[in-house]
Amino acid sequence: MGQRIFNFSAGPATLPLAVLETIQGELLNYRDEGMSLIEMSHRSKTFDNLVNGAEQLIRDIMGFSDDYQTLFLQGGATGQFSALALNLAVDGKLAEYVDTGPWSAKAIAEAKKLGKPYRVIASSADSNHNHIPAEYAIGDDAAYVHITSNNTIVGTQFEDFPDTGNVPLIADMSSDFYCKRFDPNKFAMIYGGAQKNAGPSGLAICVIRKDLIERSPANIPTILSYKIFAGKNSLYNTPNTFGIYVVNLVMEWIRDQGGIDAVEKANRHKAGFLYTVLDSSDFFRPHAQDGSRSLMNVTWRLPNEELEKQFVAEALAEGLSGLKGHRSVGGIRASIYNAMPLAGVEALISFMKEFERKNG
Amino acid sequence: MGQRIFNFSAGPATLPLAVLETIQGELLNYRDEGMSLIEMSHRSKTFDNLVNGAEQLIRDIMGFSDDYQTLFLQGGATGQFSALALNLAVDGKLAEYVDTGPWSAKAIAEAKKLGKPYRVIASSADSNHNHIPAEYAIGDDAAYVHITSNNTIVGTQFEDFPDTGNVPLIADMSSDFYCKRFDPNKFAMIYGGAQKNAGPSGLAICVIRKDLIERSPANIPTILSYKIFAGKNSLYNTPNTFGIYVVNLVMEWIRDQGGIDAVEKANRHKAGFLYTVLDSSDFFRPHAQDGSRSLMNVTWRLPNEELEKQFVAEALAEGLSGLKGHRSVGGIRASIYNAMPLAGVEALISFMKEFERKNG
Repeated sequence: MGQRIFNFSAGPATLPLAVLETIQGELLNYRDEGMSLIEMSHRSKTFDNLVNGAEQLIRDIMGFSDDYQTLFLQGGATGQFSALALNLAVDGKLAEYVDTGPWSAKAIAEAKKLGKPYRVIASSADSNHNHIPAEYAIGDDAAYVHITSNNTIVGTQFEDFPDTGNVPLIADMSSDFYCKRFDPNKFAMIYGGAQKNAGPSGLAICVIRKDLIERSPANIPTILSYKIFAGKNSLYNTPNTFGIYVVNLVMEWIRDQGGIDAVEKANRHKAGFLYTVLDSSDFFRPHAQDGSRSLMNVTWRLPNEELEKQFVAEALAEGLSGLKGHRSVGGIRASIYNAMPLAGVEALISFMKEFERKNG
Repeated sequence: MGQRIFNFSAGPATLPLAVLETIQGELLNYRDEGMSLIEMSHRSKTFDNLVNGAEQLIRDIMGFSDDYQTLFLQGGATGQFSALALNLAVDGKLAEYVDTGPWSAKAIAEAKKLGKPYRVIASSADSNHNHIPAEYAIGDDAAYVHITSNNTIVGTQFEDFPDTGNVPLIADMSSDFYCKRFDPNKFAMIYGGAQKNAGPSGLAICVIRKDLIERSPANIPTILSYKIFAGKNSLYNTPNTFGIYVVNLVMEWIRDQGGIDAVEKANRHKAGFLYTVLDSSDFFRPHAQDGSRSLMNVTWRLPNEELEKQFVAEALAEGLSGLKGHRSVGGIRASIYNAMPLAGVEALISFMKEFERKNG
């Protein structure tokens, strides 16, 4: 198959090799069905079992109760920015948002565009989003509070989630989906595009508390209605069948690793290793503040942009790809999702040390 | 790989074996990039080339000019029912729809739900949609005329398209996407879910005349805005990268078959073969009227429902799957998309003749 490299892309992103091998092995004939999974009717018993199994497995891995339902939708998190505002806003109440980076800002802009009354209750914009705000002025009667649990571009992550009392807490977990244990009962809905930590692109996963589903107004676009899709078990229309199939394989892979605690342990080890190197160097300067650092997207600067360009180019030549930081932060970003093996982080660190030795 | 069967499912549906083999061959390492296509950033040069190539190839195969742009969107045709009404309706004008079956009805229901003034200008509902209406009362000043070029459930297809003059003609071609040559300049937009004749599910392909794009209002959901996605070459957010990749392979396969005329010739041969058998039998009764018959979805009844059940079950045992008709028409439906080999139709016909001999 040729040489696979270490892919630090922010998303679509590296997937477990075992998952890719399974896809490859059954690509022409899915489990003796005589056809590829991507050729199979979404109304078949086989696919129905697959989607039901995935729905349950996603809840089970984190411990969501039967009060919740997993929805498989299309359009990624961008689609959900629209959908959640259309479905979950409530007349006479404010939709409240925490602004922790460019993706939060997009969610906020969508609520504004769609004419939903909203309020930003905390922001880290004045420090280029290098931390998660510590204080939130949550209203007693908000429609919901929306957070971005991990900020792909800036490399920050919530360590603890806000206590919103009776106000439904909604989290965009696109870039830290199932990277560590959290208390699922704190949330009214978590969602994410699959393409960073859960599967291929073209799929949004929402785990929603069932009472929230009743909020969906009747006159919103069908494709964005939680109520319609929940009522049809995500099969109102043809879903992204390949996406659901791969997400299910990735969830089985998490289970087979020992579950979410084992995955979290591996993630803390990988990220800790990398942050230790950053903190012990004057050459590399981490962007995110301690206490807000992402386990998934690690961002740092070098002394100047020329060196950053050189770093990215030389890393690529060593088989370490996707390390260029987002233009809004600059520098370097290493996305080390669940599927990034420790060997990838070790190879990156070896390269960093050698690069510093030569250029520091 | 085990035995592949003939899959007559209406969608997701059979794909060219050569396409599946390509996907399988490069699943772990896409063209020496060191990663799977599904792990690759949509912002990479490689993916950018892929999406640009697919955009152009889809236009080239049918002869669309540079006045048109191909958009890759999510949500299938159901998403487009919402999107086209939101983007292309015009204040003070009626949106006009031709009702040729359940999918037309869904498009119409969506315009109504979203509060767009609309009118049904022709319908075949009173004959259970067994034909395409011959007459349309097209307004001089409609916002658009919407047709469903092929009706998956009932098995009808437009042989000629209505002349709508200056009124933009929009066609949902989900189930006959690129099955035969048509004059692309007649259309303001064609669109379809990919999962029947063009690729896997989770992707909508729209080929839109660029002047139509300017109609998009600013305050509609971002995920449904033609203007926003056209302005970013379908990469406003992460698209269904796997879907675009496979659609591009299928379009290359059409090109390699000899282009759309060669594919049309094969389709007419396959469908003609099957309709001839239906017409020469009293045992099998075709649903669609002559002059409106689909090249893609062939529907028929047997003398009673018991025999229909028996037919579906015995066919499956012979490796002919997905033949059960939709509940709204009943009976049998054979979906014989571009990728269905002649051998599949021949096997079906052999089975039909034997079944009639035993049970007729």
